[in-house]
Order: sequence, then structure tokens, then C-alpha cells
Amino acid sequence: MFKIDRNQGPGSPGRRRRAPNSESAVDDVQQLHEEKGKKWFTEMNAVNPKLLPGMQTDVEVSDIIAKRKTDRHDFILLNTTAFGKVLVFDGTIQITQKDCWTYYEMSTHLPLTCHPNPRKVLIVGGLDGSGLAKEILKHESVESVDHVEDDEEMVNLLKKHFHASGFDYDNPKFKYHPVDAKKFLKLHQGEFDVIISDFSVPPPNADGLFGESYFELVKDALKPDGITITLTSGIWVEMRRPTRILTEKIRWLRNLFPSVDYYGFNIPSCASGQGGNIICSVTPEVDFRRPERPLSEDQLADWSLGYYNLDIHAAAFALPQFVKNQLYPTGRHSDFAIYPYQ
Amino acid sequence: MFKIDRNQGPGSPGRRRRAPNSESAVDDVQQLHEEKGKKWFTEMNAVNPKLLPGMQTDVEVSDIIAKRKTDRHDFILLNTTAFGKVLVFDGTIQITQKDCWTYYEMSTHLPLTCHPNPRKVLIVGGLDGSGLAKEILKHESVESVDHVEDDEEMVNLLKKHFHASGFDYDNPKFKYHPVDAKKFLKLHQGEFDVIISDFSVPPPNADGLFGESYFELVKDALKPDGITITLTSGIWVEMRRPTRILTEKIRWLRNLFPSVDYYGFNIPSCASGQGGNIICSVTPEVDFRRPERPLSEDQLADWSLGYYNLDIHAAAFALPQFVKNQLYPTGRHSDFAIYPYQ
Repeated sequence: MFKIDRNQGPGSPGRRRRAPNSESAVDDVQQLHEEKGKKWFTEMNAVNPKLLPGMQTDVEVSDIIAKRKTDRHDFILLNTTAFGKVLVFDGTIQITQKDCWTYYEMSTHLPLTCHPNPRKVLIVGGLDGSGLAKEILKHESVESVDHVEDDEEMVNLLKKHFHASGFDYDNPKFKYHPVDAKKFLKLHQGEFDVIISDFSVPPPNADGLFGESYFELVKDALKPDGITITLTSGIWVEMRRPTRILTEKIRWLRNLFPSVDYYGFNIPSCASGQGGNIICSVTPEVDFRRPERPLSEDQLADWSLGYYNLDIHAAAFALPQFVKNQLYPTGRHSDFAIYPYQ
Repeated sequence: MFKIDRNQGPGSPGRRRRAPNSESAVDDVQQLHEEKGKKWFTEMNAVNPKLLPGMQTDVEVSDIIAKRKTDRHDFILLNTTAFGKVLVFDGTIQITQKDCWTYYEMSTHLPLTCHPNPRKVLIVGGLDGSGLAKEILKHESVESVDHVEDDEEMVNLLKKHFHASGFDYDNPKFKYHPVDAKKFLKLHQGEFDVIISDFSVPPPNADGLFGESYFELVKDALKPDGITITLTSGIWVEMRRPTRILTEKIRWLRNLFPSVDYYGFNIPSCASGQGGNIICSVTPEVDFRRPERPLSEDQLADWSLGYYNLDIHAAAFALPQFVKNQLYPTGRHSDFAIYPYQ
């Protein structure tokens, strides 16, 4: 089971050092290798035990755009046949040019339409912030997007080489803060309408991402009707025995927030083809399946959305029976509203 | 684009010979290989251009249970770490022990609950038929399940070695017919309430699976209120440029059936983590999102369902905006009912 180390010192979620016995992803010849004249990158689950063990994904590589190694991450940016530019942290695919918009749209429009009047939004992590910020700023009510990520060199690398969204970094509503996330949160209590926590996959025993100490700070930085989401994987990865890690995460978050739910989406470059977020509100009994401010058909068209729409919003909360039985053993979820006969 | 060869002679969907220049999947060393003392099977998209090119999946193999090569298929049955028993046809993973129930449930309970009174059900293909038949026979109204598959040796191999469902093949309501599917359909006009066409992935220019000649026979074998489904892949595979094959398939099927829709589900062993079916009815204007006979909470529990439930049923029809724009360019789909505000 996921272990919360409450005695671990403060630090931003990304401020973790590599475990001494972990392998170097960049240098592992098995991850970048050649076969019949083609180069491949292999996302090895041995490197990241959070993914499905005994299954791995290969992507054909046309060239390596950039490599970087810090005390925190092995970073590789690849050009690939299937997904265009692919960003790899520590052996795990983080995001790809060809399907990143799925994640950006589902992590912005869904929480923002659930909020009655989102004016101040915070992104913690989120790489260079541009993919999420571009979608957030389509909402006219939004006055500012703050982006906190203390690895400024990584941000600059992505600004230069990835930048799949085409976002204008000089947008006056957008502000990047190269500082520690926890320190930032402590200085901004009760300020934000929506906080999006988007980190790369953490080690299983990390405080920071799912430790309550981090989410206590998130809760304190939200306004009284604030909404926050945090990145997870898809259900097949998250509900793997024996850890059933999603059940644990949701249990912890329910200690802090009165309204907590999970929603998923399809993103083929992720392990098992799915991603997901946990969504939480300070307001009790929020039904996240019903947005406060549904987007109009005109907005959907004008915003050139590729994944998100109103059906997808509601459907994202539908859980397969094996997940529902685990997350809602008391049947709390059985009055789920998207089924029209209930 | 998919080409329908109307001059191709009759034959069951499985009765296609291997293309002369195709590779042998069983013998390809790249597909079964060793790395650091572990055996891996690689699902290579070079072998099957229908999957996502430039992306492939590896599964760790503990042992090879059976191999068989015919003029039609290379067949390998593997034991794997991630998915238990895995069945591979011609280099492509067909089904795995650990997630096959997702497919079985979504391909039976969804169409059967959309039918007012399903009594006679036909499975065409469907491997040994047992996984689908077991779910179908949970519906009390069903009097008979016929299973047509002319590769009897393959059926016997699967009965002996796979049999993930634990189905009792001696169930008196179940009948296996080792005959050609088209011939069988011609002899059973107007007989079936539900027909499930479940074939392994065909070559892109195959008649039989998506050619109108096969589906004309399916339509004729249905009763006037009959429902039929046919296997596809997930949207990211099916909607790939330039073919956008799902758009084509749906267009053809709309020439034959007045009600046609697509639904998807998550299944991590499939390319891109998704599978899907096209569902068709002879009855006009059927809304497949609203089952005629929704399962009760007691039925869901008594039947030990792992994936299907009423929310998943409705949500399966929610399409990402890029798919909706392609499949329903006229906006026909925009009155989609699962979103409660519409």
C-alpha cells in the first residue's frame, strides 16, 4: 500500500531525489535500441512499477531532440512516428504531441465548467504550463493563470522544443513562478478558484503528490467554493491488486474534501490507453457530472475542441463495475445520473 | 480507403488465405524474443497495419502453451505475466484471460438489453463462443445460442487451453456449428433476434467482415426487430488518417440498417487500450443508449458483472469531439441524451 510519510520534510512535489538504486533511463540501452534499421524507445515498467508490470510499449523514434539529466529526472525528448514529439521522464512517457490535447482539455474544461465563476486558476507542475493555460484562458471569466514549477531549466527546454499547444507565453493573464510549490501555496491562502496539480508520476512512497500535507495546502489555497484536480493514471493501472491505489488516494482525499470523484479519458500513449484525474471540491455534495456552466455548442466549435464535449464530460465519470464496487462499496455511487432511467 | 471487392467469391469471414507476401508471425524472432533472461512477445504493427503504426506492445511471456499454423492463421497461445493466457492470431493479440470479460460483457449485455425480447442469438466467429455464450445465457429470455465458426480445430484448441469463462459447453441451449458463416446465414433467414459478428482483425481489403454482401446476409437472418453488432477497434485506431475507417464502416452499414451507432470500452490489452463495436438495428430510430430492458441492481450483482453496468452502457456511446465531428458531421448526434441538460 501507498505509504504516507508525514515526517518527510517540505519540498515541492518535483523536489525529490532519484532513489539511489534506480536505473538511469537515458542510458539504459534497452530503452533506446535499434531493430532492423529502426530506432525504438521502450517504456519499461521495470523502471516505473506504477505501470502494468509484464507489459510495455515501444514507440518508433526518428530522432532524439534533447536529453537532460538532473538529480531529479532523466529527461528525453524524442521525435516519433506514431505520436510526433514525445517527452519521457525517468523512462516513462509523460506526454506526446499527437494526443496531449486530450489531457489538456479534460483537465481544464471539466473542472472549470464545474465552477460557478472561475477567475483565478493555479497550475502546479504541468510541465511548461502552456497546454493547460491555453485551454483555461478560453474561459472568459478567468482573470489570471499562475503556473508554479521550480525546475526552470525544464520549463525552458519545453518552451523551446515541445510547445505543442502554440500558446502565447506572453499572454498578460499568464504568470510563471519558478518556485517551490508548497512555499507558493502557503503564501496564497484562500486565493484560487481552481487548482490543477499535474505532476509526473511520483515514486510510490513520495509525500508531496498524494500526501495529505500537500493537499492540505491546496485546500487552504482554494476559495470556499474552490475545485481542485490531481493527475492519476487509468483505472486498470490504478486499481491493480494488491494496492488498488486509486481507492487509497480517494480515501485520503475524502478526509480533506467533502466532494471527491474520479473521471477518466482515453489517451493512447498512456499505459493501458487511459488517463484520469481525481476532482475535489470544498463544497459538499457537488455532482461533478453536471457542470455549473455547460459550454454551448458555439463555444465547443469556436474553441476547436478535439476531445471534450458535454457527453464526454458526463460519461467520463462512468465506472466499470469492478471499479465502482471498490470505490463505492456502500453503493453511494449507484444514483449515478447519466443513466436516464434512474 | 477500405475497398469492397464485390466480385470476391463467397466464403466465411475466416476463410481468407494468407496474403503471399505476409510474414509468418509465429516464426518471426522479433515477436518472440529474450531480454535479460525474460521472454517477451511483441505485437508488431508492421504485421497488422490496422493498429497504430510506430507503436507496439510487448508482453512478458512465461511459456508458450500452443502453436498452430494453418493456411488461414498463425495461432500462438501464451502464458503472460500481465494478462494470464494470451491468444495471438497473425501477430496480433486477440484476447487475454485477464481482460476478456470486458469484451464479453460489452458485446452481449449491451445489445441484448436493447432488444425487447431476445430469444434466439447467433455468434459468428467469437473464437470458441464460450465467453460470449456464458453472458448471453444469463438473460432468461434466451432460448438458444448458435455459434458458427468453421475452424473446428481452433475451437477445440481454445476449448482445451483457453476457456477463460468457465462456460459449460454442454449447456443444452448452446449449439456449435462448424460450418461456413455465409452458408449458415443463408439457411436461417429471419430467425435471429441478435447476431454478434466477432472476427479476428481482417485484412483491409477483405470482403466478408465489412463488405455489404456479408451484412446483407446478417440483415436477412435477423427478425424484423433484430439487432446486430460487429467488432471494431478503439477510436484512435479506427479514426486514423487518412482512412478514418470507422467513418467508412458506419457509412456502409447505414446503407443497410436504419439505426447504426458506435460504442467503445477500455480493454488494456488492445492497441490504444480500447475496443469497440458498431451496433445496428433493422428498426428505425433506435436509441441504443437507452436499453429496452435495463438490468436491475440485483441482476448486476447476481450475474457478477465486472465491467458492464447501466452508466457504462450509456457512457460507451459518448464520443470525443474529433470523432463526433467525423461520424456525425450534420450534427445528428448532437441531441445525445446522456448529458442531463440537453
